[in-house]
Amino acid sequence: MKKFNTAPISGAQELLPALQAEFDRLKDGIAEVYARHGFLSIETPLIERTEVLLAKAGGDTEKQIYKVVKTAELADDADQALRFDHTVPLARYTVEHLNDLAFPFKATQINRNYRGERAQKGRFREFYQCDVDVIGWNNLPVAYDAEVIATLCEAMKLLPLPGFVVRVSNRKLLSGLLAELNLDHQASEIFDIIDHAEKMPAEKTTAALGDLGIGSENVVKITTFMNLQGSSEQVLPELRGFGFQNPVFQEGIEELETVLSLLKDLAPEVEVVADMLIVRGLDYYTGTVFETIVPDYRAIGSICSGGRYENLASNYTDQVLPGVGGSIGLTRLFWILHEYGLVKPEELKPVDICLIPMSLHEVPAAARLAENLRRQGRSVDLVLTEKKIGDKLKYAAKVAKYASAIGSSEVESGSYQLKDLESGTIETCKF
Amino acid sequence: MKKFNTAPISGAQELLPALQAEFDRLKDGIAEVYARHGFLSIETPLIERTEVLLAKAGGDTEKQIYKVVKTAELADDADQALRFDHTVPLARYTVEHLNDLAFPFKATQINRNYRGERAQKGRFREFYQCDVDVIGWNNLPVAYDAEVIATLCEAMKLLPLPGFVVRVSNRKLLSGLLAELNLDHQASEIFDIIDHAEKMPAEKTTAALGDLGIGSENVVKITTFMNLQGSSEQVLPELRGFGFQNPVFQEGIEELETVLSLLKDLAPEVEVVADMLIVRGLDYYTGTVFETIVPDYRAIGSICSGGRYENLASNYTDQVLPGVGGSIGLTRLFWILHEYGLVKPEELKPVDICLIPMSLHEVPAAARLAENLRRQGRSVDLVLTEKKIGDKLKYAAKVAKYASAIGSSEVESGSYQLKDLESGTIETCKF
Repeated sequence: MKKFNTAPISGAQELLPALQAEFDRLKDGIAEVYARHGFLSIETPLIERTEVLLAKAGGDTEKQIYKVVKTAELADDADQALRFDHTVPLARYTVEHLNDLAFPFKATQINRNYRGERAQKGRFREFYQCDVDVIGWNNLPVAYDAEVIATLCEAMKLLPLPGFVVRVSNRKLLSGLLAELNLDHQASEIFDIIDHAEKMPAEKTTAALGDLGIGSENVVKITTFMNLQGSSEQVLPELRGFGFQNPVFQEGIEELETVLSLLKDLAPEVEVVADMLIVRGLDYYTGTVFETIVPDYRAIGSICSGGRYENLASNYTDQVLPGVGGSIGLTRLFWILHEYGLVKPEELKPVDICLIPMSLHEVPAAARLAENLRRQGRSVDLVLTEKKIGDKLKYAAKVAKYASAIGSSEVESGSYQLKDLESGTIETCKF
Repeated sequence: MKKFNTAPISGAQELLPALQAEFDRLKDGIAEVYARHGFLSIETPLIERTEVLLAKAGGDTEKQIYKVVKTAELADDADQALRFDHTVPLARYTVEHLNDLAFPFKATQINRNYRGERAQKGRFREFYQCDVDVIGWNNLPVAYDAEVIATLCEAMKLLPLPGFVVRVSNRKLLSGLLAELNLDHQASEIFDIIDHAEKMPAEKTTAALGDLGIGSENVVKITTFMNLQGSSEQVLPELRGFGFQNPVFQEGIEELETVLSLLKDLAPEVEVVADMLIVRGLDYYTGTVFETIVPDYRAIGSICSGGRYENLASNYTDQVLPGVGGSIGLTRLFWILHEYGLVKPEELKPVDICLIPMSLHEVPAAARLAENLRRQGRSVDLVLTEKKIGDKLKYAAKVAKYASAIGSSEVESGSYQLKDLESGTIETCKF
């Protein structure tokens, strides 16, 4: 009988070993893709000084932050809290180690972050994010926007998803359009309407734009713009067709063209579309923006997104550090994959082989065999319990794909029988 | 110029990318060894309810615990804090998921823990521990004590250390000895003297035992016992030679014999000694105990230790869950390896190859080559900056082992030159 509430805290993902192994397999696979693309892994403390965390943030972030209480030993330390994302620690790290880093600094962080949000299904207070960022010092070519997207695409290919589509836009297009139409002063309302347009009926979006009193001609131009979607060959001529001379708009076209063109080389098998509905919030991104959808499961929303920002660390330094980054929110995504049956725990067995010595006399031979199999990359559980063979096989069936009993006749003959615990088929192998 | 204090919090390890890559390589290597030995990785939240964390602990632990402040959203939640080790979360997890786990439950946890200790050199407030544990339900054969030690030895072989020695004892020997000598009531003082004996001159230890007023004959027996050290063939006859009939002492001899004998099969190339100086604190361990020293660097102390405990989770359940476990304290160990020059950051280059397309025209060919090299397991950084080739090579020399410039002649000829950035040697390769 339990004497205690042993549930994990609310808002945390705590998995049984088979699902944990699958989660780790995906996480490690993503890390390997990032590393193969030349991203350097960094790890910052989970705890930061509160003033560092809140230098920029405010509002909801401040309300959701996990503050850490000082112990007697730490009485002199500044206020501290758990980080809520990887961007703030990356900014602090880059400024702290500026002269020891090579630029562009291609960084990856795969770790947990903390937000004390109201608990609800599929929302986590402790969650993994798998980030890549490229930080330039003073400048950073737009080619890295494509490199970041291509790297994330390679990582997403590892996920058990029936295909995905990357939707790319550039914030300069919308900014330039609004400047051209002299609607700068209403930019935030218009950004907001476009950002939410996908979840609204088209009439409502048009009506909302109309309510801004910007004139019906402008409403038409904006709705025409925001509904542009397709290949670069389809969308770029349409954008040029607006005939806008605004230099920011022109820059947006050129950057989008470069990114889409490079992605044909860097991510040749991935479906990438230009999509003017992609805006990504208001404050942060300044150029390329992207999201990723799974067409068969549109309700999931974007599984990987990011973009280009003008200056990573303006709160901490007067050096200009432009960057581009993106992130896969793995904890939420894994929860979704499980909910949708795309990860099946009953098919997952974390161990390859259970080797069962029939008595302590067979341990030396079984240990040597285990060592050989491990050298071949197999995981081997040497079952050392003093139970009946039937019970040992029941244990094996719970954790492993294969089992083999090693008795004196196996040791003498130098061969053993490997049983597939799923299909029941038996294969004879040499020691 | 910095506008802000961007140092990481005191007591945290924050590494530059090359050292971080080496740290990750060791951590991932340890994880792989544990997995190959059939240990199942689990991950519990970093935050636990304070009542769970402090169910057993007290004293220093309570003073050093990092409490977490409730946000507005979490006002109804119980008090929470950061975990200070992996044992408490393992106990909670095992009880919570008791009916979904296969027993013996072979668990591994490799993650960070938090203790708000006074900051000093080589002491960390945030630190990785790499734990393995085997938990039985009602019983667990002593053979698993050997399996845990063998697994940890296999992991320690990955560390850049000039050899190590595992020192094994069994707490039942000392308990049985004290019962035989009718010194149970002074057990904690005697345990303490033995635990510190190694750092004391022999006369001081003898004097301290003498001061307990236990009689000179007992002092001789205890010092004779505690100085027993050597192979099982040397130590076991000496232990039997005491002629003690106490059943706990007899059990201790048998368990120690089994563990040492199994280790010859399970860890054949490792130096294992029986050593009666090994006690490992007072409250927790009840059978096998072990520590690991590096003879060339004795001052480091034990780099991996652990033992057998009677009952993992008596505070949370009335089920009996005996276990055996051990841990490598990787953050402190890595700091030591670096301090002692056993990890050399200047020799570490996290990226294999920098591929440098001479212009955007060579990006398609360079991207295809990068993809091929990545499929062969190499990490490849495609350098997309718009700098002079000399600056690009300087960048490459900071992050990578090799570099290659891909210009139009390389694309036409289908071959490229791979430069070793350390030795300067050049090798011609095919695309």
